[in-house]
Amino acid sequence: MQNLLYVLPFFGVLGLLYVVWKSAWVAKQDAGTDKMKKIAGHIAEGAMAFLKAEYKVLIIFVACVSLLLAVTANGTTSSWLVGVSFALGAFSSALAGFIGMRVATKANVRTTNAARTSLGKALEVAFVGGSVMGMGVVGIGVLGLSLLFIVYGNMFGIDSQENVTRVITIITGFSFGASSIALFARVGGGIYTKAADVGADLVGKVEAGIPEDHPLNPATIADNVGDNVGDVAGMGADLFESYVGSIVGTMVLGAAFMVPGFSDNFNGLSAVLLPLVLAGVGIIMSFLGTFFVKVKEGGDPQKALNMGEFSSSIAMLVASYFIIKWMLPAEWVYNDLLYRTATGEPTVRIMTAIGVFYATIIGLVGGVLVGLITEYYTAMGKKPVLSIVRQSSTGAATNIIAGLGVGMMSTLLPTIVIAFSIIGAFYFAGLYGIAIAAVGMLSNLGIQLAVDAYGPISDNAGGIAEMSELPKEVRSRTDKLDAVGNTTAAIGKGFAIASAALTALALFGAFMTTAKINSIDVSKANVMAGLFIGGMLPFVFSALAMGAVGRAAMAMIEEVRRQFNEIAPLKAALALMKKNGDTPVEEWSTEEQKVFHAADGSAEYGKCVEISTKAALREMILPGLMAVIVPVVIAFLPGFGVEALGGMLAGVTVSGVLMAIFQSNAGGAWDNAKKSFEEGVEINGQMYYKKSEPHKAAVTGDTVGDPFKDTSGPSLNILIKLMSIVALVIAPLLVKEVPATTAEKVKPVIESVTTISEVQTSVK
Amino acid sequence: MQNLLYVLPFFGVLGLLYVVWKSAWVAKQDAGTDKMKKIAGHIAEGAMAFLKAEYKVLIIFVACVSLLLAVTANGTTSSWLVGVSFALGAFSSALAGFIGMRVATKANVRTTNAARTSLGKALEVAFVGGSVMGMGVVGIGVLGLSLLFIVYGNMFGIDSQENVTRVITIITGFSFGASSIALFARVGGGIYTKAADVGADLVGKVEAGIPEDHPLNPATIADNVGDNVGDVAGMGADLFESYVGSIVGTMVLGAAFMVPGFSDNFNGLSAVLLPLVLAGVGIIMSFLGTFFVKVKEGGDPQKALNMGEFSSSIAMLVASYFIIKWMLPAEWVYNDLLYRTATGEPTVRIMTAIGVFYATIIGLVGGVLVGLITEYYTAMGKKPVLSIVRQSSTGAATNIIAGLGVGMMSTLLPTIVIAFSIIGAFYFAGLYGIAIAAVGMLSNLGIQLAVDAYGPISDNAGGIAEMSELPKEVRSRTDKLDAVGNTTAAIGKGFAIASAALTALALFGAFMTTAKINSIDVSKANVMAGLFIGGMLPFVFSALAMGAVGRAAMAMIEEVRRQFNEIAPLKAALALMKKNGDTPVEEWSTEEQKVFHAADGSAEYGKCVEISTKAALREMILPGLMAVIVPVVIAFLPGFGVEALGGMLAGVTVSGVLMAIFQSNAGGAWDNAKKSFEEGVEINGQMYYKKSEPHKAAVTGDTVGDPFKDTSGPSLNILIKLMSIVALVIAPLLVKEVPATTAEKVKPVIESVTTISEVQTSVK
Repeated sequence: MQNLLYVLPFFGVLGLLYVVWKSAWVAKQDAGTDKMKKIAGHIAEGAMAFLKAEYKVLIIFVACVSLLLAVTANGTTSSWLVGVSFALGAFSSALAGFIGMRVATKANVRTTNAARTSLGKALEVAFVGGSVMGMGVVGIGVLGLSLLFIVYGNMFGIDSQENVTRVITIITGFSFGASSIALFARVGGGIYTKAADVGADLVGKVEAGIPEDHPLNPATIADNVGDNVGDVAGMGADLFESYVGSIVGTMVLGAAFMVPGFSDNFNGLSAVLLPLVLAGVGIIMSFLGTFFVKVKEGGDPQKALNMGEFSSSIAMLVASYFIIKWMLPAEWVYNDLLYRTATGEPTVRIMTAIGVFYATIIGLVGGVLVGLITEYYTAMGKKPVLSIVRQSSTGAATNIIAGLGVGMMSTLLPTIVIAFSIIGAFYFAGLYGIAIAAVGMLSNLGIQLAVDAYGPISDNAGGIAEMSELPKEVRSRTDKLDAVGNTTAAIGKGFAIASAALTALALFGAFMTTAKINSIDVSKANVMAGLFIGGMLPFVFSALAMGAVGRAAMAMIEEVRRQFNEIAPLKAALALMKKNGDTPVEEWSTEEQKVFHAADGSAEYGKCVEISTKAALREMILPGLMAVIVPVVIAFLPGFGVEALGGMLAGVTVSGVLMAIFQSNAGGAWDNAKKSFEEGVEINGQMYYKKSEPHKAAVTGDTVGDPFKDTSGPSLNILIKLMSIVALVIAPLLVKEVPATTAEKVKPVIESVTTISEVQTSVK
Repeated sequence: MQNLLYVLPFFGVLGLLYVVWKSAWVAKQDAGTDKMKKIAGHIAEGAMAFLKAEYKVLIIFVACVSLLLAVTANGTTSSWLVGVSFALGAFSSALAGFIGMRVATKANVRTTNAARTSLGKALEVAFVGGSVMGMGVVGIGVLGLSLLFIVYGNMFGIDSQENVTRVITIITGFSFGASSIALFARVGGGIYTKAADVGADLVGKVEAGIPEDHPLNPATIADNVGDNVGDVAGMGADLFESYVGSIVGTMVLGAAFMVPGFSDNFNGLSAVLLPLVLAGVGIIMSFLGTFFVKVKEGGDPQKALNMGEFSSSIAMLVASYFIIKWMLPAEWVYNDLLYRTATGEPTVRIMTAIGVFYATIIGLVGGVLVGLITEYYTAMGKKPVLSIVRQSSTGAATNIIAGLGVGMMSTLLPTIVIAFSIIGAFYFAGLYGIAIAAVGMLSNLGIQLAVDAYGPISDNAGGIAEMSELPKEVRSRTDKLDAVGNTTAAIGKGFAIASAALTALALFGAFMTTAKINSIDVSKANVMAGLFIGGMLPFVFSALAMGAVGRAAMAMIEEVRRQFNEIAPLKAALALMKKNGDTPVEEWSTEEQKVFHAADGSAEYGKCVEISTKAALREMILPGLMAVIVPVVIAFLPGFGVEALGGMLAGVTVSGVLMAIFQSNAGGAWDNAKKSFEEGVEINGQMYYKKSEPHKAAVTGDTVGDPFKDTSGPSLNILIKLMSIVALVIAPLLVKEVPATTAEKVKPVIESVTTISEVQTSVK
């Protein structure tokens, strides 16, 4: 069994070797013309500048929290090492974001260049770029967690339930660190990207009437930087955190089985190590899946990506079966201290390895179902998006009402899927089943994330093509890649939400186990109060995020307007563009062409990048701190306490999942309703295209949806997990002296006689 | 004690006598010119037609459910009389709506006529009209509940806890009936009024450019009818249901005290009768409050209304102190079977009369606080509304983002108030405290509702002044009344939400007591699944309501467009209005005036009334049925069950309260942001007025907010209460054979010996 433990880090190393190998491959690809290189340089520079500035702020936060964790440790129930783990988790998360961003900002321009010759080559570059990020995240995760388990295990021992629990409790700090950085990265990145996007769109597209990604728009570089810091670094940190959180949560719950009667070939550690082994093998399966992502010119990139994910999932499912069968005992009896009967006695539960396997299947199927439902509600040509398109004909107001309606309605089916997944996973394997379902969902995260990150890389590639004024077929190839990216992003978002829900529940169970409480009874006043407060947090959090985007976008709009008014060559070129309408520049008079090209490079991109950077950093602080501080306040506020904290977690999980689905899907549906007009839509027998009145209404809807789907919506996933992990970290401080149950007290009496009447007789 | 019981109905009769007296007074007032009478006739006719059509549909529903309740009664745990109570409750709710609507459609035109001479007289008519509705609701409520208690009490006896519980259980049917009708009335009324409003605004105001309430707009009568069916009948039914629900919930919980050791002067019934007595005395206090509502010309109607509510509240508070002191024992010990300790034993709780009084104060203060916070977030000139105004300068999208942000942020403080109210009320008097807090909040509902209903009456009065083309000073007087109405409506909405939350919790406790379950543990998989599903329902419900408004509004828009195009005199008059812009009709050429007046009465109001009526009736069915059916399904679905139902109730309560606050406040804030432009607003040093670009953006926001604040938002209040009452009604069927706790089993053993070791010794 010791052997297995020492093998685990090598799975992580394999992932990182892939990163080194493929990063070098991407760097070796040709980056195209000088103009392309220059533009890509601007983007890479802006992205790195943001990351550096962000990490500079976060390092203070990490230092403070680490210190606080180390200092408040009282030695018996918590250790100063929690602070160390926290710092390592934060560092790992930042590293994962850094790796993803660096390769993405290299892959974008190389994808553009590849698209000059072939679709297949472009897909390859974009996907490999994404896969570096994916493998980096899983590699760092498995390596970090397994090394910590080995090191702390050597310090405290892993020979008893008590010691193992202690080791894992310290490791929760790692998950906490990862989660905090993830929240800041998601919120900061989300504000950055949407401030730039809304600013670029409202002044550039709507007011000045220039196309998206036009080099004369000063906000366009910031917009492309935003795709990287929001969709690449932000999402990477998000899923790194889900991955780590679900594994740690499962480990905590697995340690509960280490009691006499549980016998396996791993010194009782099989249930603890199982999530790590599944994750490690998942790295191999993801790697194998990458070989299936291939497309020929004229082929369908969607199919290639599906093929990769699908083959990897099937392989992982088969592998899971054998791993679970090999590691866990076929059957064992478990006295569930958490779920006591009405009379206060532990529930006796018969656990089976096959039950655990069924739970992983439920997780996988649930995740895919939520993804597919998400796709239905946000895809072009389907009923929900069509209803928004139709209601655009009576103006922006009805478009908005329709979009909000679609978003709210889209909570119905995913909630039912999640509810049944919870009941099913619990039925087969208790709370451990719910946790392992989350792990199952995320086990081949390597390739899932590759597909997710592929989207913004393709998006950027298109932007670079536009800004570099490359021939139209290049843009049309990148558009093809990008369109696929939108669908996969929608499915990925659904998956992320479903996995966040299960991970939060796994952490919830881990919290209860660690805090030694055995019920969170909502009929108690303090729990109900906690439920209300928890339910409210996602609303307030969303409001903060949207307010931040609104403020930052206003600043961006003013800056772009200023440049358009004050920079003379820019003003002249814009006036000519307005005058000549849709006529291509090549057909303008020579004089006009000269004036137009004189404006080249006169837009001050740097100023816009700076505005987004500063706004993102300033605005991410409050929501980030809120997530960390509120659980602590609830736990220690008189009248509330540990059970109220449990109620709060339940509230924030349910309300957070619902608000995330609502906002992400409303945003996605608005986006595609707007895109529908690009190819023309039929409303009441009449065709409408771009620039028609209904299209303008749809643009308004899309702008409202932007912060919904890219800032507040996805941040909620992290909020719910971060709050759960904070609760888990402080749980050891919240343990109350539990009075022995009456059952335990009188057990000796009961056991020594056969019937109550016998006792009565005997004591008479 | 028997005497007290027989006195109770007379409080109700007093309320109804007031209704007869003041209805006659209103009818006696002069209804003004023939034109006014004609227009008011149209409105009254449309409103009554809708009510009749609605009741025709509902009578089928009521008959089916009554029958179902009667037939499924198994005699021991439930009675066929529940079906009878249901029908009576439904009838009472319908009657309350009918009374309110009848007087409101009389008072509106008489207020207009009074406004031709003086502000004070106009206020009097509008307020008396509202007070008829208010006193009708409370009169019917107290009369119905106390009569049922007397009748069923005589049938089954009220001498033991078992019998009293049985009597109250049957009475819950009354509350169920009231709630179902309320939901249909709110949803149907909400769809009706907003379909007409959005239709009238979008085509009339925006497309044709004619002022609000203009007689040439075919949707204008439907719009005014909508104010009556939505804001008067809908709100009346809503609060009737809160009133009845909170009283019944408290009665159920009060019956739990009827155990040996609880001794009062009312055969142990004091805690059961207390809510009814408080409600009865509240009728008197409301009556006294009406005398303070007086204003002179040039005075402030707001102060007059505040004076009435304030004096009535103070008087009620003082009266409550003496009533509670008089009825309840000063102190008693209560073995709380609901809140067992970790070891499964009942909690011992020392209850005091003064604690119960404190709980009523907490309810009252909490309600007022939530009302004031609501006002802050929706009032003109305050920061939240100003932020929406400011963000209107960059278009509709930023206006919408700002409004959504304000709505979401506005959940923060009310939730904290509710959370502390729950904890506080529970601290002083347990679950009974939470229930009595809700009763305290609603005890002087008579005058609260008078003030609420006064709003739509004034609104209608203004509409009639406009349509009858009365002199400007008449409209300015009614506008003054109406502006006050908007503020009171905001506060009233906050109050309604807070009371709904507490009422739902009271019913929740009553449900647990009746179903004999003693914990709803969210860490159980089925409870958590229930929590998710419950949390989702308000989203889906809102989506259905908004979808319904969208569809109905589209139909209305098409009808109005058709009339504008096809009815020749209308078309000619509209063209002239467009041509002459803001020039008053009196200054047009004689020829033009002739053409304009030829259009008089050519708009086909009836068609629009019909569209709204049909749409409302068709669209209210699905959400209404959902509320009734889902709890039953959850209760009996395998894998879910009674505890999952509890989880669902917790989820729907929390999520429903949050969504109601979010939607109501966002809608209110958008409305007042738009209204701010009427007097002009300053953005970045520039003044903007009506018809400016920012104003148009604000109109879009207001249109989005309309279904938020008048359809889905307020319906959620009823949804959460209705679902709780359904659960309470089916609770007797869900009682499982509870195994005696170990504590109970071994009690004889424990009691007969002194220590555990003694037992062990003795059985050795």
